[in-house]
Amino acid sequence: MRTLKLVVQYDGTDYAGFQIQPDRPTVQGVLEQTAAAILGHPVRLTAAGRTDAGVHALGQVVALNTATPLPLDKTVEVFNGRLPADIAVARAEEVEAGFHPRFDARRKRYSYRLLNREVRSPFICRYAWHVREALDAEAMAAGTACLEGEHDFASFCAGGAETNSTVRTLYSLDVAREGDLLEIWAEGSGFLYQMVRIIVGTLVAVGLGRLSVESVAQVLAAKDRAAAGPPAPPQGLCLARVVY
Amino acid sequence: MRTLKLVVQYDGTDYAGFQIQPDRPTVQGVLEQTAAAILGHPVRLTAAGRTDAGVHALGQVVALNTATPLPLDKTVEVFNGRLPADIAVARAEEVEAGFHPRFDARRKRYSYRLLNREVRSPFICRYAWHVREALDAEAMAAGTACLEGEHDFASFCAGGAETNSTVRTLYSLDVAREGDLLEIWAEGSGFLYQMVRIIVGTLVAVGLGRLSVESVAQVLAAKDRAAAGPPAPPQGLCLARVVY
Repeated sequence: MRTLKLVVQYDGTDYAGFQIQPDRPTVQGVLEQTAAAILGHPVRLTAAGRTDAGVHALGQVVALNTATPLPLDKTVEVFNGRLPADIAVARAEEVEAGFHPRFDARRKRYSYRLLNREVRSPFICRYAWHVREALDAEAMAAGTACLEGEHDFASFCAGGAETNSTVRTLYSLDVAREGDLLEIWAEGSGFLYQMVRIIVGTLVAVGLGRLSVESVAQVLAAKDRAAAGPPAPPQGLCLARVVY
Repeated sequence: MRTLKLVVQYDGTDYAGFQIQPDRPTVQGVLEQTAAAILGHPVRLTAAGRTDAGVHALGQVVALNTATPLPLDKTVEVFNGRLPADIAVARAEEVEAGFHPRFDARRKRYSYRLLNREVRSPFICRYAWHVREALDAEAMAAGTACLEGEHDFASFCAGGAETNSTVRTLYSLDVAREGDLLEIWAEGSGFLYQMVRIIVGTLVAVGLGRLSVESVAQVLAAKDRAAAGPPAPPQGLCLARVVY
């Protein structure tokens, strides 16, 4: 029996999220069906993160067990030959038995993209949140400072999280503008449910002048979901990388 | 009665092309329905180019006539508020009566994008042709030289074109590589049916070493569609700009 680790990319637009659900298209569902067809036995995957409906991935990591002798150097090609156009395997490797993509992850990095101009774009808006009003990226960057480090992020955790503790370490949180595009990068030990999207929603409130830079620390200190604003929409979010 | 000129962008993936067809989703159909709902009367558009199924546009130009007093500075916003996410109006202006987006165009520019690496991408491959084998971009660029200028492009015209002459002027044809991405830019007085895609298909044959640089001139001289290779697939093509 071998354990395969696959790095998976997907355009999440047409999926009801990563996690398998009956009667709805999910990334996990497509991956498990494809793996089963290739390997000749039922497959249950584990994954680094259960991305929400509409969220994308450049570096999702999944693991599966198989005794089928599929050569490692053919695995990427064989999977990509069967997967739909909006899901691809970027890399495959064999790992130790017992490897778990979520529990063994040391760091995860997410990107969140915004299009900040009056007119929307059919291309960019598939992968970005379109905000018409001018965003003050410098104020947003100033608002990130108090969030970096180890904190109780309860204010930035949507209900329904299956977690014992809401303490997480955010190694870095960066805001960069390039023309009409704003990118927010968040790297952390792990993320609570909708944490990145709620952080982005809060930073956008700062960028629009609806929330002061100083208020971000108060939102954090409140340890109360009601203190933060609504989450940013899913299409701007991308699970960029998982480090082991 | 006013004539409105709209610059339109669309992701052509989910459309059976620009031109209206019964019972199939088309860009023209969606634009005419949207315009009719906004303006309160039936609308028939004219357009700069009838892009094929799956082809995209950053600078398609359409024109329509209306007596409805929609303020010009609200037109973009009103259209984008009703159009689906994969179609957007980028600019609107009022033009002289009798303006025709196709007949009045002086130049059109198309881009064609290729992803040249082993592994495909769910993001890029929506807007690019994935070619696994290494492409020699310098040979492809050398192959463009004989195509620039005024020529009879009959070899690069797919059947079914409604045209009297197959002579066109290609002002420029450029190949540029940036990492895994290749972009081909074609600017001309006008283009025959599938002309850019057949040119790209031929240049890719050169880039793969299946056709010599010198053979491109022979393909052109043959004035015979059978002399050129198959057209490149539609998703790499984008109508980038129309100049009046």
